[in-house]
Amino acid sequence: MPDPHQVTFHDKQIAMAHGAGGEASRRLIEGLFRPLLANPLLDALADAAVLEPPIGRMAMTSDSFVVQPLRFPGGSIGELAVNGTVNDLAVSGAKPLAMTAAFILEAGLPTETLRAEVAALAEAARKASVPIVAGDTKVVEHGRADGMYICTAGVGAIDPRAALRPGRVRPGDCVLLSGPIGNHGMAIMLARAELEIEADIRSDTRSLAELTTALLEAAGGELKWMRDATRGGVATVLNELARDAEVMVTIEEEAVPVDDDVRGACELLGLDPLQVANEGQFVAVVSESLAEAALAALRRTPGGERACLLGVVSAGPVSRVLAKAAYGGVRVVDMLIGDPLPRIC
Amino acid sequence: MPDPHQVTFHDKQIAMAHGAGGEASRRLIEGLFRPLLANPLLDALADAAVLEPPIGRMAMTSDSFVVQPLRFPGGSIGELAVNGTVNDLAVSGAKPLAMTAAFILEAGLPTETLRAEVAALAEAARKASVPIVAGDTKVVEHGRADGMYICTAGVGAIDPRAALRPGRVRPGDCVLLSGPIGNHGMAIMLARAELEIEADIRSDTRSLAELTTALLEAAGGELKWMRDATRGGVATVLNELARDAEVMVTIEEEAVPVDDDVRGACELLGLDPLQVANEGQFVAVVSESLAEAALAALRRTPGGERACLLGVVSAGPVSRVLAKAAYGGVRVVDMLIGDPLPRIC
Repeated sequence: MPDPHQVTFHDKQIAMAHGAGGEASRRLIEGLFRPLLANPLLDALADAAVLEPPIGRMAMTSDSFVVQPLRFPGGSIGELAVNGTVNDLAVSGAKPLAMTAAFILEAGLPTETLRAEVAALAEAARKASVPIVAGDTKVVEHGRADGMYICTAGVGAIDPRAALRPGRVRPGDCVLLSGPIGNHGMAIMLARAELEIEADIRSDTRSLAELTTALLEAAGGELKWMRDATRGGVATVLNELARDAEVMVTIEEEAVPVDDDVRGACELLGLDPLQVANEGQFVAVVSESLAEAALAALRRTPGGERACLLGVVSAGPVSRVLAKAAYGGVRVVDMLIGDPLPRIC
Repeated sequence: MPDPHQVTFHDKQIAMAHGAGGEASRRLIEGLFRPLLANPLLDALADAAVLEPPIGRMAMTSDSFVVQPLRFPGGSIGELAVNGTVNDLAVSGAKPLAMTAAFILEAGLPTETLRAEVAALAEAARKASVPIVAGDTKVVEHGRADGMYICTAGVGAIDPRAALRPGRVRPGDCVLLSGPIGNHGMAIMLARAELEIEADIRSDTRSLAELTTALLEAAGGELKWMRDATRGGVATVLNELARDAEVMVTIEEEAVPVDDDVRGACELLGLDPLQVANEGQFVAVVSESLAEAALAALRRTPGGERACLLGVVSAGPVSRVLAKAAYGGVRVVDMLIGDPLPRIC
């Protein structure tokens, strides 16, 4: 039975008034956002949502999304905005409890474009079982944004077994990687059609929560550190690990899973796949004794089939990341410097 | 003693690379954000911050800020970004526990402009006693933003005495207002210098937490509803109250505190001060029996000296807001429609 109070939103484009907080904002929120995002916490539509978190440690994180184009093979900004925040919580050992989403819209944005991204955000939130409990909408003049930007924040309950910090990483520990790298960054690059490359590359955007939970269950307190390899790629994450844990990390270049199309595109563009962004992969450090069991647990989990042992931690020289090639050569893996791939998330 | 690991940030302008997640991002975060925002929770610089919230209900909220100009008499975007989120928590009966801040920066932004706003944000957070525990920085091309946008999210511990919901509002209840209205919206309007009006009007941006706490202490469970009167002004907030609580609200036009300069500017522009945005005022509903004590408590609290009894709640016609004028006339007070004052927060 249709709700007689249901507001419909028929405006074809977003205008400045939709961000003014008055009647037009109300129609946008009740006619577009609310039906797509409906959940008991959001439905109160108060200034803040009321949560009843479990007792214990909680993780909190925030991210903004400015990806261009808004839609790309394998995903879109709305989906990314959920998965990015869910994954920051997941690699902190936390189960997502609630998220917020704030939209900055450019006047003139077609309503259908907005509706598609709110729907994508709602679907990703449903998949990750996390309610969107509060939000905000602002509108800026045409030419003062790029379609839309989305900011999300999230809170999660930290698993009591999780004891994740770089200070616990020791020489001998093993470095695991969840799957093939470089797909997200290259999918965005190709979607911009600035290049004459034809390749079927799709973003890997997804929630990592099931994989991080599987790892935590398999390794417990021997799981020491996790980080998702987004901007700056695996290379940047490994350099952060080496510096924060004051260790050296050595990886086997051969072990790094890279899809053929991604490798080919990277070679054409002179990019190192290790420096290309991912939105569905993470790096973890596990003590050697449980590394095999942890890797097996990852591989058993849907989406973790191509997880691998990426490398090992050693005493030093500290802050250094090295990659050993198949033929025996060794190279230094640096953090990303400059920005060959702007606005990939 | 200077920290030998202290990174300095000497770049004069923000460039795309500062948002890429690699070495340049790291320098920006460690050289500019971290020294200004330093606190033990943020200093971990992990994907998410770890909180240990008290047991009980928690409020969560989010806001984005696109105000133009970035600085205006009485405040700036950085200060607003904290106060807006703190106030959403405060009117939910919650004491702020932690906040996140995500920045979307336009390439070419002078570093000094960014530094000033991060400093303003840090100072407002310090005043409100809330740590900034996590953040994010993205950079978009010149012409794809307007200097900077900031998104904040916050969580707070809800006071066990708070039982705030529109369903508890009853005919006979009293409507209180925290102080003079319209200053923020008119300060922004004049700061844009689109008008030939000379007036000394300053934004009222501030944390409302002390005032809402005083009210809660004085009225306890007889405090039934609070909302800060930002976009759309007091008129929009009263209309939301009348609709959500299914009551009529009648205010005394004479009782509404409006500074002379604000009233003059509104008259020149044909604006109703009730529809002009505030960033430091809120509306509350208290049962009649405790209204006097609640008002006295507000007035005793610094910044609440001009609080007033704005009007009363009656049975109907529901969803209607009326203003009684001094000479006996009555007018309908509508929600803001359209946007005479875009981007005021």
